[in-house]
Amino acid sequence: MNRTTAAALLLALALDAPAQQAGPSPAARPKVILIIGDGMDQNQITIARNYLVGLNGWLTLDTMPVRSSVQTQTVVEENPTVPEYVPDSANTATSMASGIVTSTGRIGTTAGTDHDVPTIMELAAAAGFGTGIVATSSVTDATPASFVAHVSGRLCEGPRSMVSTNANNTAFSADCSADLKANGGKGSIAEQIAASRIDIVLGGGQRYFAQAAEGETTKTVRDLAVDNGFRVIGTAAELAALKRGGKVLGLFAPGTMPVLWRGTGGAQAQRVLHDENGRVVQPEPFACEPDPAFGAMPTLEAMARAALTHLDDGRSFMLMIESSSVDKQSHARRPCGSIGELKQLDDAVKIALEYAEAHPETLVLVTADHSQAAQLVPERSWLGPNAASPGHFARIRTPEGAIMGVNYATNDSTLQEDHTGADVPLFAHGAAANEVPAQVRQTDIFKIMLRHLRLTPPPPP
Amino acid sequence: MNRTTAAALLLALALDAPAQQAGPSPAARPKVILIIGDGMDQNQITIARNYLVGLNGWLTLDTMPVRSSVQTQTVVEENPTVPEYVPDSANTATSMASGIVTSTGRIGTTAGTDHDVPTIMELAAAAGFGTGIVATSSVTDATPASFVAHVSGRLCEGPRSMVSTNANNTAFSADCSADLKANGGKGSIAEQIAASRIDIVLGGGQRYFAQAAEGETTKTVRDLAVDNGFRVIGTAAELAALKRGGKVLGLFAPGTMPVLWRGTGGAQAQRVLHDENGRVVQPEPFACEPDPAFGAMPTLEAMARAALTHLDDGRSFMLMIESSSVDKQSHARRPCGSIGELKQLDDAVKIALEYAEAHPETLVLVTADHSQAAQLVPERSWLGPNAASPGHFARIRTPEGAIMGVNYATNDSTLQEDHTGADVPLFAHGAAANEVPAQVRQTDIFKIMLRHLRLTPPPPP
Repeated sequence: MNRTTAAALLLALALDAPAQQAGPSPAARPKVILIIGDGMDQNQITIARNYLVGLNGWLTLDTMPVRSSVQTQTVVEENPTVPEYVPDSANTATSMASGIVTSTGRIGTTAGTDHDVPTIMELAAAAGFGTGIVATSSVTDATPASFVAHVSGRLCEGPRSMVSTNANNTAFSADCSADLKANGGKGSIAEQIAASRIDIVLGGGQRYFAQAAEGETTKTVRDLAVDNGFRVIGTAAELAALKRGGKVLGLFAPGTMPVLWRGTGGAQAQRVLHDENGRVVQPEPFACEPDPAFGAMPTLEAMARAALTHLDDGRSFMLMIESSSVDKQSHARRPCGSIGELKQLDDAVKIALEYAEAHPETLVLVTADHSQAAQLVPERSWLGPNAASPGHFARIRTPEGAIMGVNYATNDSTLQEDHTGADVPLFAHGAAANEVPAQVRQTDIFKIMLRHLRLTPPPPP
Repeated sequence: MNRTTAAALLLALALDAPAQQAGPSPAARPKVILIIGDGMDQNQITIARNYLVGLNGWLTLDTMPVRSSVQTQTVVEENPTVPEYVPDSANTATSMASGIVTSTGRIGTTAGTDHDVPTIMELAAAAGFGTGIVATSSVTDATPASFVAHVSGRLCEGPRSMVSTNANNTAFSADCSADLKANGGKGSIAEQIAASRIDIVLGGGQRYFAQAAEGETTKTVRDLAVDNGFRVIGTAAELAALKRGGKVLGLFAPGTMPVLWRGTGGAQAQRVLHDENGRVVQPEPFACEPDPAFGAMPTLEAMARAALTHLDDGRSFMLMIESSSVDKQSHARRPCGSIGELKQLDDAVKIALEYAEAHPETLVLVTADHSQAAQLVPERSWLGPNAASPGHFARIRTPEGAIMGVNYATNDSTLQEDHTGADVPLFAHGAAANEVPAQVRQTDIFKIMLRHLRLTPPPPP
C-alpha cells in the first residue's frame, strides 16, 4: 500500500471514530521523542526534586500525564536462558532500541550468537523518516551507540579499542575483532556512526572521531563522516547558528561532556569518620554550584532544541535524547553532579513537551535505562550518634533550608559504585500515551515506539 | 434504595451509556480498599517479582491498570515549616489517613501543635459506612494506629507505655502524658481502638490489650473492647468460622505476627569477609523457605477475605489492609522475610481485585508508606574480586536458577537499617482509578479516597 492510500484509509477510519477520542489527525506524521536519564531511578528523581523545586514542588517530568514502571531484563552471555538481575546501559539501550533482551555490554547484538539486530533508528531511516541522537556522553557511549551501532562490546568505541585496550575492565571487556571491517564487520561504534543515515548526532566524543579509521593511515573517522555528508560542528555557537538541512555531527568534548553542577568547591560523598568515643563526625553539609568545567558547553536543552528544529521538516521522526551523566556522577559519588544532570534532562523534557503541544502527533517518552546506587537517607541515622553509612555519604544543604542525606554503599571500592536492578520509571505524553500500560518490560518501549511510528516489526533475530 | 431497585437502575443506565464508559452506577455504594505494603518500594517489588514469578513474570499488583508515584512529605516537629526528607510509618500513614503533613512518630496529630485530626475511618464511620483495619503487625503499630487513633508518639501503644518506656528509642521517643485519659486525652492506641467504631480489626498485638486499662486495677483493654461490643477472637480457626455482624477484634499474636518466609535455615544478609589477599569471600547463596514460626497464623489473604466478607453488607465501606513486615524484615536484613510478606500482600491484592470485579463501585489502591534500605545489586560487584558491599549482603538463589544480590547498607549499626526517602509506587484499579494522577503527594491519597466515598472534607486543622 502506498502512503497516499494508507493516509486515505486512516482518514476514513478517523471519521468513524467517537468524538471523545479527539487527538492528532491520523494523517499527521507520527513523531517520537525518547528521553533517557541514564541511571535516573526513583531515588535520583526524588533527590533532584527535593533540591531543585523543594519537597512541595514538581519537576516538569512529574507533570507528564501517564506513568508506568519498567522491568529491565538481562541474560548471561554464556547461557542466554539464565537471567541476570542487574543490567548495564548497553543491554538496556539495546532492549529499548531493538526490542531484544541481551547480555551486559552488548550493543545492538544478540547474547551468545552475536547477531546484529535492527534498531528503531535504522527502521525509521529506512522508512524515510528523520532521525536524531543527542547525548551528553560521547555519542559512542553505550546508550547512544545502541540506537545506531552493532558491536560485541560497548568499549569498542573507536578504531583503536577494537581488541585489546579494554582488557583491564572486568565488567565489560570484550573482543570486537569480529566487528573489524577487515573481518567483514561494520567497524567501531564511531565508524558506524560516521557511516550512518542519522540526520543529526550531538554530544561528546571528539577523540574517537579523531582516530585513524580502520585500514587508513591519514584518514580519520571524522573524515569518513564528512565523506558521508555530515557537516561537523564543535561549539555551542556553531550549534546556535545551525541552518536546517543536511546531516549534522556535533561533537563538543573529547569524551563525556563536562557536567552542569558540582558540590560547593568540588565536594562529593565521602567515608564517614568516628571520634574516639565511636560517635559519628557528621560530614560537613554542602550545596550545589555551577561546575566551572562546564564552560561554554551547549546545554542538553540547547542540543534538544537544535535537534527538534533540524528534524521539524514535516516528516515523521525518531529522536533519542540522553542525559548521560546522572549515572556517571552517581558512579563517582557526586550527588550535585547527578542533580544538575537531572536538571538538564528536565529542561529538555520541557522543550519536548512544548514541541508535542504544538505537534500533537508526537509521543514523548521519558525513562531511565537502569537504576543506580544513590539512596536518599536520613541526614543522621535514626539509630543514634554512633551509626553512619558504611559506604560514602553526603549531606546536601537544600535551597529550602534543610539537609538531605545521600548514601552510596553498593560496594567498598574506592573507585566507583555499582548499578542496581530495580524497575525504572516511564513517563508518557501525547495522544498515544494512554496506550502505555502501567507496567511494561523494557523491550515494550521499542514496540510502543514502533507502533506509534507505524513501522513494520522486524523478524525475530 | 433496595438492591433490586438498584440493579434495575443499573440496567437502565447501562442501556443508555456508551459501551466504553461502563462502570458502577452512581447510585451504587462506593467502597475503598487501601492496601499498604510497609516499606514496599520499587527495589522491594522488583526483588520479590524476580523471586516469586521470575524475571519474565508479573505479580498481581503489576497487572493493575493505573500507576502513579507518591512523594512522601514530613516536617520537623520543632519547626513544622522545615521539611525532612525521610519519613516514618506514623507520619506517612497519618498523611494517607488524614490528609495532613506531620512529623515522624506522630499518630493522627499535627506537628508542633499536637491537634487531633479526623481520619478517613472516623469520617466513614460517622457517615454510617462500614470500616475495617487489617495488619500483620500489632494493630497498635504505626500504620493501623494512624487510621483510628490520635497520640503524640507511635510507641504509646498500650497503657503501660504512655510516658517513660520509650525513652531509649532515639528516633521515636515521645511523651504521651497529654494523651492520658486522666489529662483529658483519649488514652493509649490500644484503648482508642477498644473505644472505636471500627467494624473489624485484625492483626497482632494481644499484649497491649492484656494490659490493665488506665485507671483500672483488674479491667484490661480487651475488657474495654468487649464492653464496647467487640467480639474478640484469637485463632485462624475462629477467623475462618467468623459469622457476619457485630464488631470483631481479632488478635492473633502477642505483638507483630510471625512472617511467612525466611532464608534457608534462617539465613539472612551478613557482612562480607575478605581472604588474606583482599579478595571477597562470597557469602553462601540461600533460597527462601516457610518460616516455622508462622505456624497456624492466618495469612493476610485469609484476614483480607474475612474482612471483606464481614463488610459486604451493601453499605459503603473503608478497608485498610497492611502487609506490615516488608519493612520490618528489611530493617532486620532478612530478604526472604520481605519477599514472603510481599507475597502475602500480592495474595491479598488478588482477593481485593476479585471483590472489585464483582463490585465495580470499589476503588482498590495499593501503595507503600515509605521506601526502605534494601537494594537489588549485582551478586558479585562489577568492580572485581576485591569489591563487595560495605554493609550487609545476601545472595539469593532464585527458583529460575540464577543468583540475586540484595544489599543493606544505609548504616553500619549491628541493629538494623534505616528508611529511605524515595517516592513510593501507587497502583489503582476501579472506575475511579483513572482519576488518580500520574504523580501525587501522599496527602492526595486521603483526598482520592474521600472523593470516591463522597465524604465531606474536614476543616483544616
